[in-house]
Amino acid sequence: MMELTIEIKIRYDEVDKMGYVYHGNYAKYFHISRTELLRGIGLCDKTLEDINILLPVIEMNIRYLKPVFYDDVISIKTTLTKYTPLKMFFEHQVFNKENQIVNRSTSTVVMVNATNRKPIRMPEFMHKKIEA
Amino acid sequence: MMELTIEIKIRYDEVDKMGYVYHGNYAKYFHISRTELLRGIGLCDKTLEDINILLPVIEMNIRYLKPVFYDDVISIKTTLTKYTPLKMFFEHQVFNKENQIVNRSTSTVVMVNATNRKPIRMPEFMHKKIEA
Amino acid sequence: MMELTIEIKIRYDEVDKMGYVYHGNYAKYFHISRTELLRGIGLCDKTLEDINILLPVIEMNIRYLKPVFYDDVISIKTTLTKYTPLKMFFEHQVFNKENQIVNRSTSTVVMVNATNRKPIRMPEFMHKKIEA
Amino acid sequence: MMELTIEIKIRYDEVDKMGYVYHGNYAKYFHISRTELLRGIGLCDKTLEDINILLPVIEMNIRYLKPVFYDDVISIKTTLTKYTPLKMFFEHQVFNKENQIVNRSTSTVVMVNATNRKPIRMPEFMHKKIEA
Repeated sequence: MMELTIEIKIRYDEVDKMGYVYHGNYAKYFHISRTELLRGIGLCDKTLEDINILLPVIEMNIRYLKPVFYDDVISIKTTLTKYTPLKMFFEHQVFNKENQIVNRSTSTVVMVNATNRKPIRMPEFMHKKIEA
Repeated sequence: MMELTIEIKIRYDEVDKMGYVYHGNYAKYFHISRTELLRGIGLCDKTLEDINILLPVIEMNIRYLKPVFYDDVISIKTTLTKYTPLKMFFEHQVFNKENQIVNRSTSTVVMVNATNRKPIRMPEFMHKKIEA
Repeated sequence: MMELTIEIKIRYDEVDKMGYVYHGNYAKYFHISRTELLRGIGLCDKTLEDINILLPVIEMNIRYLKPVFYDDVISIKTTLTKYTPLKMFFEHQVFNKENQIVNRSTSTVVMVNATNRKPIRMPEFMHKKIEA
Repeated sequence: MMELTIEIKIRYDEVDKMGYVYHGNYAKYFHISRTELLRGIGLCDKTLEDINILLPVIEMNIRYLKPVFYDDVISIKTTLTKYTPLKMFFEHQVFNKENQIVNRSTSTVVMVNATNRKPIRMPEFMHKKIEA
């Protein structure tokens, strides 16, 4: 299915006193990678918000395989593995500069009406963009 | 003038690889202290947002005097030193457990109409709460 | 097994433009709750670092059930559900003020030698504290 | 004197519920810009840490002139305006895509011995790199 690899350089404030990227920060990196993947097929989250659609995360499963350090450049390969009328399922693989896998995760996103905050079914135009 | 002292315990994710509280985090602590000071006189920021008033920060001056470490409990003494129809001026003094001053800062806040994002003059009811 | 419930008040900077607690922040709340649970049985993470033991997270599974908003006070009930010589397993249940469950998650922590960053087996004194 | 302009794209987690970049995040952007400016003249902060030199911030003055929004790309022009044996002084100007200035700030950095955490005078090799 659809996939995209982005690179992110670890910032100073993202590293904890152990010297590792703080484990809570991976959620942000996965978010950026999902956003860019969807943007690449014409589903920019800002544009979706303009038409009242939000994309909150409802599940994440994160496995930390190796530590990542300050100033490291990581590659995040994100794949839209599946989608249903209600959910989009993503897989994330993170690699360090030595091309070792350092993190393997999944995330699940739903579509929500921004006004009443209720889940909605994927609109036809989104479905078409994904299929295209 | 009005003042309030709050205590905050430093979280693990707020400390950088030097072992110090990351310098960018003080803005969050000052924000919490302003919020609690204003809440104490009946000016809760959530309630203000409900009536369409935002309180963005337009200026901060921060002096880092001593480092603060993980798990430290700091006291933040915040004073509303002055206000005009357009601005509120705050002073922040941060103390560690040994009662040494570790940070001395100021912040300035304006009032903004949440719809058009334009600055507004302080409404009469806010003025009265502060004077009371 | 051992459990602890802590309360956390959501800060302004922890909420995103959807108005929800940003999903990446839950990792921080779970971290605080694990720390306090272990501290309660005499296993303070600072003290462990002093004797060269780090406690990195190697796995998290997070399910977001309901949104949480700015200034909400959430209760996080954390349970040490199991431990082996190499790992500690935690469960986290988060409740809002209406006592509705808003998040249900797990996290797994290992013990690491701070000098060589290799996993270690749980030292006898830690084992005893947990059993006590 | 020396200057460098970098671009940063605003991340979702960096924006608050007002829809603005959270004011505390500018410290991170300025940090990145200082790091890249110094790296450009051969003073990489990682390398400095390897030889036991830390660069903590001791003062910041931040003026927020216009709001910045999610997904905006900002340009940060950072100038090393002055240095003494004990301090480096930086100026930061932030511009939005319309080339409007949105933030004007300064920051001051000292050099510290990583072992005893005492301030040190700028070593000769750093002085030479800056002068070169």
